[in-house]
Amino acid sequence: MNESTAFAPVCPLPISQYPQIQMAHGGGGKLMHDLIEKMFVPAFHNTLIDVRHDGAVFGIKDARLAFTTDSYVVKPLFFPGGDIGSLAVTGTVNDLAMCGAKPLYLSAGFILEEGIETEKLWRIVQLMRQAADAVGVQLVTGDTKVVDRGKGDEIFINTAGVGVIEHGLTISPNSVRPGDAIILSGDLGRHGIAIMAAREGLEFETVIESDCAPLAAAVGGLISAGIEVRCLRDLTRGGLASALVEIAEASGHEINIEEEKIAVREDVQGACEILGFDPMYLANEGRFIAFVPAGDADRAIEIMSAHAFDTSAARIGVVSEKTSGLVTMKSLIGASRIVDMFSGEQLPRIC
Amino acid sequence: MNESTAFAPVCPLPISQYPQIQMAHGGGGKLMHDLIEKMFVPAFHNTLIDVRHDGAVFGIKDARLAFTTDSYVVKPLFFPGGDIGSLAVTGTVNDLAMCGAKPLYLSAGFILEEGIETEKLWRIVQLMRQAADAVGVQLVTGDTKVVDRGKGDEIFINTAGVGVIEHGLTISPNSVRPGDAIILSGDLGRHGIAIMAAREGLEFETVIESDCAPLAAAVGGLISAGIEVRCLRDLTRGGLASALVEIAEASGHEINIEEEKIAVREDVQGACEILGFDPMYLANEGRFIAFVPAGDADRAIEIMSAHAFDTSAARIGVVSEKTSGLVTMKSLIGASRIVDMFSGEQLPRIC
Repeated sequence: MNESTAFAPVCPLPISQYPQIQMAHGGGGKLMHDLIEKMFVPAFHNTLIDVRHDGAVFGIKDARLAFTTDSYVVKPLFFPGGDIGSLAVTGTVNDLAMCGAKPLYLSAGFILEEGIETEKLWRIVQLMRQAADAVGVQLVTGDTKVVDRGKGDEIFINTAGVGVIEHGLTISPNSVRPGDAIILSGDLGRHGIAIMAAREGLEFETVIESDCAPLAAAVGGLISAGIEVRCLRDLTRGGLASALVEIAEASGHEINIEEEKIAVREDVQGACEILGFDPMYLANEGRFIAFVPAGDADRAIEIMSAHAFDTSAARIGVVSEKTSGLVTMKSLIGASRIVDMFSGEQLPRIC
Repeated sequence: MNESTAFAPVCPLPISQYPQIQMAHGGGGKLMHDLIEKMFVPAFHNTLIDVRHDGAVFGIKDARLAFTTDSYVVKPLFFPGGDIGSLAVTGTVNDLAMCGAKPLYLSAGFILEEGIETEKLWRIVQLMRQAADAVGVQLVTGDTKVVDRGKGDEIFINTAGVGVIEHGLTISPNSVRPGDAIILSGDLGRHGIAIMAAREGLEFETVIESDCAPLAAAVGGLISAGIEVRCLRDLTRGGLASALVEIAEASGHEINIEEEKIAVREDVQGACEILGFDPMYLANEGRFIAFVPAGDADRAIEIMSAHAFDTSAARIGVVSEKTSGLVTMKSLIGASRIVDMFSGEQLPRIC
């Protein structure tokens, strides 16, 4: 297909249906998926963006590189287990890891609202440096903008990252094969609940801390152990459900998972019941899924668990022979249902 | 110096002096310079960020790469001669060009305010694609966040860029040498005045359009002609004056320029007089300065003029033998004065 003919002169997103952008367009669910698939991808269409991965992978001379970006608008700026600064480093580093890349360099773009306390900015900047040191990346270039009071929300941070890929694997939804095991790196939902509780001043019996954590070491462990990693995805906005739906859709394969294999801590489950959330859709900032050949599953679980600190990895499902592109889940009582993306907005501004 | 000992535990910026961030901290003048030099550089200190260039230059395997980022918060979103979308592409591409790199790939991070018209977003996205096509770069990865109504300003865009350096020059303030000629690529101030006029609804006899333009072709022309380019800088926030002061300071050399060599169109000069602006500090989005050996100056002027469309390049000054790190300007009436950064805020949100 020719690049210029593929460039869409008419917006494939039916604008009359959503004449204005809503919060849910950034929520990780169906509306965001539509915005990306029917506006950004058609407008920018090229072979790299069409892969629909957490980042772009390309070669320059003999270097195979990954490149990714995320903006961070999390509210509040500081929450149990994390803050916007460390999230802005860890989140982008994790996207590079999901490309199978070793993270090397980050950029930082600050959009400050007039009036933010300088002391607060300094704390955030220090937390970024600490998070960068912890994963061995360098912040090497940046930009600062200030917008008028009432036109921002204290601070928004964009980071972009560059990493190097030092193996021959193609880690992508396209590499997923029937029979692949799906390994989840740990329990679900702590980040979403931690943000929600901090924002709304909710108190549970125990403080639920975000799961925010760097994932590059775990991915590096899988690759250096010679496991033929097929696809990786971190479970941020939209949670496990959206990640699986996206991969099923992009690969064309059906994915079958089992609810009883998915760990959710009791306190998180309790909070979800009170608040009306489903942990399958809650954002995590230190959890990912790995698609690996069935024969590598046990070793992958071992490696991922060793890097998961206070939780364990588990095999939660399998890639089916079917080519429906759907995700099905066998529930605790044995019934099977189709897992879809969230159609509304579960929780805004969680990252 | 050891990286960890260099990491500043106390903020070198005297926070008590500016307990809150002001608009001028993003204005390209002294306050922004202080914020960068006394907060971001000490916090993130490493050999790459210390170069104080428009982007970072590093090697991965046998590829020499440039990496840069900018956020765009320009207001209004559409103005004579440009718009936020094309600016978000051209501005970052220009920063790569200033590193002497051939721009290849861009990321795009959108921060949308709930309620922005979907049609407007589509227009902006199309303009980004057109600007990318015009310079031969691809938008390959992105991110979208939506913030609550009243917590943003319709749209902010961050772009980061990766380019490849295919020559052996070290283009940096550190490469500047006494005797180097300073070439300015065209007339000053059109972008700043265009934004100001559009924002305030001012009307002049003629519509002043932004000078917004890609600069990579001109830089490529200089390099492929074998000109030993020492340093490049585009004249965005803070204008020509700030760019020269930064380079003089970073290199330690004194810079001497002549006011009569600096082109300012009559309508821009008139607008400046009415509005109380100094064209030396006005932002441009399609102008740059090149430091080249004196013997290459005439050829450099020829090449830069050939790429400048509706204006001409000129030799505006020279790098002195003196090591004061200052910039002096001989005025039209022959007096010499020191050029400093702007201490207040000339014009907010121009890019």
